Amino acid sequence: MKTIIIGGVAGGMSAATRLRRLDEAAEIVVFERGPYVSFANCGLPYYVGGIIEDRDSLLLQTPKSLAARFRLDVRVNEEVIQINRKAKTVRVSNVLDGTTTTESYDFLILAAGATTGLPLSGRGVPVRSLRTVDDVDAITAVLEDVGADARAVVVGAGFIGLEAVENLVARGVHVTLVQRGPRPLSPLDPEMAGPVLEALLDHGVDVHVNSTVVDVGASRVQLDDGSFIRTDLIIEARGVRPNSHLARSAGITVGATGGITVDEYQRTSDPSIYAVGDAVEKTDAIDGAATLVTMAGLANRHGRTAADAIAGIAEPSAPALGTAIVGLFGLTVAMVGWSETRLAAYGRPHRVVHTHPSSHAGYYPGAEQMSMKLLIDPETDAILGAQIVGGAGVDKRIDVIATAMTGGLTASQLSRLELAYAPQYGSAKDAVNMVGYVADNVATGSTQSIQWHEVDDAMGAGETLVDVRTADEFSRGAIPGAVSLPLDEIRARISELPDTPLVVHCQVGQRGHTAARLLTQLGRDVRNLDGGYRTWLAGMS
Amino acid sequence: MKTIIIGGVAGGMSAATRLRRLDEAAEIVVFERGPYVSFANCGLPYYVGGIIEDRDSLLLQTPKSLAARFRLDVRVNEEVIQINRKAKTVRVSNVLDGTTTTESYDFLILAAGATTGLPLSGRGVPVRSLRTVDDVDAITAVLEDVGADARAVVVGAGFIGLEAVENLVARGVHVTLVQRGPRPLSPLDPEMAGPVLEALLDHGVDVHVNSTVVDVGASRVQLDDGSFIRTDLIIEARGVRPNSHLARSAGITVGATGGITVDEYQRTSDPSIYAVGDAVEKTDAIDGAATLVTMAGLANRHGRTAADAIAGIAEPSAPALGTAIVGLFGLTVAMVGWSETRLAAYGRPHRVVHTHPSSHAGYYPGAEQMSMKLLIDPETDAILGAQIVGGAGVDKRIDVIATAMTGGLTASQLSRLELAYAPQYGSAKDAVNMVGYVADNVATGSTQSIQWHEVDDAMGAGETLVDVRTADEFSRGAIPGAVSLPLDEIRARISELPDTPLVVHCQVGQRGHTAARLLTQLGRDVRNLDGGYRTWLAGMS
Ligand SMILES: Cc1cc2nc3c(=O)[nH]c(=O)nc-3n(C[C@H](O)[C@H](O)[C@H](O)COP(=O)(O)OP(=O)(O)OC[C@H]3O[C@@H](n4cnc5c(N)ncnc54)[C@H](O)[C@@H]3O)c2cc1C
Ligand SMILES: Cc1cc2nc3c(=O)[nH]c(=O)nc-3n(C[C@H](O)[C@H](O)[C@H](O)COP(=O)(O)OP(=O)(O)OC[C@H]3O[C@@H](n4cnc5c(N)ncnc54)[C@H](O)[C@@H]3O)c2cc1C
Ligand SMILES: CC(C)(COP(=O)(O)OP(=O)(O)OC[C@H]1O[C@@H](n2cnc3c(N)ncnc32)[C@H](O)[C@@H]1OP(=O)(O)O)[C@@H](O)C(=O)NCCC(=O)NCCS
Ligand SMILES: CC(C)(COP(=O)(O)OP(=O)(O)OC[C@H]1O[C@@H](n2cnc3c(N)ncnc32)[C@H](O)[C@@H]1OP(=O)(O)O)[C@@H](O)C(=O)NCCC(=O)NCCS
Repeated sequence: MKTIIIGGVAGGMSAATRLRRLDEAAEIVVFERGPYVSFANCGLPYYVGGIIEDRDSLLLQTPKSLAARFRLDVRVNEEVIQINRKAKTVRVSNVLDGTTTTESYDFLILAAGATTGLPLSGRGVPVRSLRTVDDVDAITAVLEDVGADARAVVVGAGFIGLEAVENLVARGVHVTLVQRGPRPLSPLDPEMAGPVLEALLDHGVDVHVNSTVVDVGASRVQLDDGSFIRTDLIIEARGVRPNSHLARSAGITVGATGGITVDEYQRTSDPSIYAVGDAVEKTDAIDGAATLVTMAGLANRHGRTAADAIAGIAEPSAPALGTAIVGLFGLTVAMVGWSETRLAAYGRPHRVVHTHPSSHAGYYPGAEQMSMKLLIDPETDAILGAQIVGGAGVDKRIDVIATAMTGGLTASQLSRLELAYAPQYGSAKDAVNMVGYVADNVATGSTQSIQWHEVDDAMGAGETLVDVRTADEFSRGAIPGAVSLPLDEIRARISELPDTPLVVHCQVGQRGHTAARLLTQLGRDVRNLDGGYRTWLAGMS
Repeated sequence: MKTIIIGGVAGGMSAATRLRRLDEAAEIVVFERGPYVSFANCGLPYYVGGIIEDRDSLLLQTPKSLAARFRLDVRVNEEVIQINRKAKTVRVSNVLDGTTTTESYDFLILAAGATTGLPLSGRGVPVRSLRTVDDVDAITAVLEDVGADARAVVVGAGFIGLEAVENLVARGVHVTLVQRGPRPLSPLDPEMAGPVLEALLDHGVDVHVNSTVVDVGASRVQLDDGSFIRTDLIIEARGVRPNSHLARSAGITVGATGGITVDEYQRTSDPSIYAVGDAVEKTDAIDGAATLVTMAGLANRHGRTAADAIAGIAEPSAPALGTAIVGLFGLTVAMVGWSETRLAAYGRPHRVVHTHPSSHAGYYPGAEQMSMKLLIDPETDAILGAQIVGGAGVDKRIDVIATAMTGGLTASQLSRLELAYAPQYGSAKDAVNMVGYVADNVATGSTQSIQWHEVDDAMGAGETLVDVRTADEFSRGAIPGAVSLPLDEIRARISELPDTPLVVHCQVGQRGHTAARLLTQLGRDVRNLDGGYRTWLAGMS
């Protein structure tokens, strides 16, 4: 039995190695159009930045090592240019000399990944995406050539764009970041994204949002906002498209997303052909629809599933949550599931909770504050998504929430997780427990909450905004129109409050919750500003 | 309605504050026999070590702040000495002046915690446990008094004992650790515990295992192993007993563990009396039996549950997993569920998997290796427990596994968790995914494994042990009797292997897995040494 694999990196090579472990007798041929296989795509930006110093450490395997260990027939610089499903053959073109060959298969695995869309035309300025070893070789060559005072424009402020920015800055390059959308890292909701912009500005990056490149000259870029930017290099990071054209040409079903359609065993519309990784559609865990999630973990896992399917032992693939994380100048941004923006765009009912917990117990030195947002199904209390922005401990909390989602735990049930606590690692009520408690209070109606963007309307409708922080905190900055009544004085001074519905708030929501409970029981109609002053401020700026 | 709470720290005060939020009209009296309430027990050792510098930061609340915010009637230095269930009253003795009073209740919450058992008699050497603010004041006073070259003996190498050791060393104190059991941190299985002993020895701690104190003289301790140790201070950390005598005297049911028996709403055998925290029995998540788990998270959570129950809105408490973590000289040790030792003692069938993954992608600088052990139900593939020892990222992985256990995910399903991956945070196949893959291979029988302690027997029965690491690795140290046949040469040299059943092994298990698959398909009877040379070495030493 002979299996051909197109693409020799995350998904393709995971399929190849697993298939060999399952079937020593199988004939396995891997075609890779680039010169390298099994390289650490995700490490490429950090090689540009000099954080990863050894270029070889990016090359996890070579055709030779794969032949020795796994008896794989790995052919680099060989591009598959056609699939003939009837004959069960592929046509392959050698990238170096243009010669073509034909190879037959019993099973075919498509793992061709994704590429950037229509690239900008350079007209003198080198334009590179940051996706391959060749890309980083070219980028570092340009930068070495230019020497001191190099300047780069990064187009696109997604995950890879931000990693490019961080690493160019680490090399001493002056960077301008151009983003079509209204903010960097558009999957983040607006009130969560502030720290990302701050971090960029704090590190000397010029940021243009709501902007696109309209022209590239000899050594400059022109934006539609009227800016001209001198640059030595353009990094193209405007997102990617699945490499599905081969499949499409061969009559294999490709979905509306542009990704190859597969079933839960990674099988395409042709039962002899499997597909995995960035080139395929995933099933979204939130709405069950086809979606694109271009992540290494899924590529590796689905590569293994495809091999298992060929060997007849596959467990079905699970829907994709889209867990993702990125580091930027010491900031960590992580997310899972859907954002509020996306839920709203799809008209999907949702409840929102914001908290600003500590990475570990406040009384132990070094705790860092993070901002957390949880999106919840109001009917079922299911977790629809989460976003966390901060420093230490962000990665832990997103993984716990992703695991809880996979386990089908509700938002309120987060409060009951028994998470490891000693003061240098967490809190007796860990950040994830605490967001669960808050969710529980909203679910049971114990506290009614109001969101940052609803405050204006509430005040317009005559509600009174009560700031329950201390007088000192109030004097350092408050929401316009708020009256100050510190939490600990409410019982004594409640008669001072006007006879309107109330919105209470504190710094992060916690004292507001106690205030809301107190006032509710004293007969008042009251809502607590979710996430407090901090979320309001982040949302309004 | 009047609720009396006995004990004003983790469980008691959580109940009090929550009850106030639920019922502004309730009368709530908290009796605390010590001079402080709401203090950070878990921070106490770090104050001794000077890591927490500000003593006040340990006092999260005071009777005054609790009165202001929560209208709680908190009475410190007041010990409840009797419960009269018929009259629904308690007798209270003032610790300072011995006066007694009687107070009536509608509901009573017992949150009296736990205390060390029969303390050692000091005979001149100060003996303190490390449980209260008074304890740390006394400990630091002794150490300041002694000045340079102070010496301490810590009796008991559990979590608190180890924290005491670390912090005494941080203060420059010479420490001797005395442990009755065969190793420090006895909940860890033997092959996982090596790094704990290493860390202690590396930091100049004298360790006596299988030892007990038989006598305490004017300035020395005598052990049953014949040692005499000069010391200025003894820290009593031999574990705790639930403070359940008040309940027992009042005829409330106390279980065989010594903890107060409660239902899932934290109600004792008397429907007006609730109990929470270290004083009560929990339901073990693994076998459903009554057990003691003395953790702050559970105390806080169950305090809230008791308040909810009194207010008539409680969700039932979940069984306890016993997730725990401790830091020791930069080492992190974490666990959840049952150890192999305990499973074996209870005769509970189990499967074991060891791995030694990286905290993050190996190609990104700073990755630290950890050791992970997973205990699995062979019938259902349910996760019965986990132990992780290492540095960075240990806390994250134990929390993910604890969450997976709560969500009812099987060991194999860990491989499908979609965990956040960028190279500085994890791996495309995260440590938790990887242990899931290994578990999956054992579950499906894809690879048969053998444990470190079974190697001798296997070799005795005539099986051949094949070391599939490189010749270089083999020459640096190998299992006696193993033959060297590097993985990449197996296909060529298989005829060299004797015709016996085989046990293969590599450094951590990963190459051994590939070797096992290969040899199986080449018709050999083969098992892979779980956790490889590393686990074997840890287990044998
Ligand atoms: C700079 C960068 C950083 C990233 N960081 C992260 C991260 O931190 N976390 C994360 O989860 N994911 C990250 N990713 C995404 C991750 O690398 C991808 O999701 C994953 O590699 C996809 O695997 P794949 O096998 O589908 O495609 P790839 O790994 O891209 O492999 C596809 C291969 O197919 C080859 N190919 C294409 N067409 C043909 C053809 N016709 N014939 C022969 N060969 C062909 C290509 O040359 C390519 O080598 C990053 C990606 C990049 C580029
Ligand atoms: C040094 C130390 C470190 C710890 N580290 C951790 C850790 O890292 N992680 C973790 O999860 N847990 C840790 N713990 C355990 C955690 O602190 C306990 O599980 C938790 O405090 C138990 O809460 P509780 O309310 O049951 O008891 P406690 O918090 O101990 O409170 C009980 C209170 O009741 C009072 N009391 C007792 N009897 C009477 C009476 N008759 N009348 C009036 N008052 C009475 C006591 O004086 C005491 O203040 C640690 C404990 C200690 C001592
Ligand atoms: C590395 C690569 C070639 C895959 O090789 P692989 O051998 O399948 O995968 P790994 O090296 O991760 O090892 C995983 C295997 O070892 C097993 N394993 C891991 N640790 C083990 C242990 N301690 N004991 C026993 N088995 C173990 C796993 O079960 C798995 O085997 P299985 O698939 O049969 O279950 C492929 O993933 C690749 O090319 N990666 C680089 C590109 C990439 O991933 N880019 C994106 C991220 S930067
Ligand atoms: C601190 C202590 C008095 C409890 O006070 P508390 O107000 O109940 O608890 P916290 O300060 O943790 O706040 C939790 C409350 O705030 C709410 N909350 C937290 N963050 C919030 C936010 N951002 N928005 C809204 N509400 C929030 C929670 O929902 C919870 O309220 P609930 O119980 O009504 O659901 C008690 O736990 C104690 O004495 N602790 C010290 C001792 C101890 O725990 N020792 C062991 C560990 S060292």
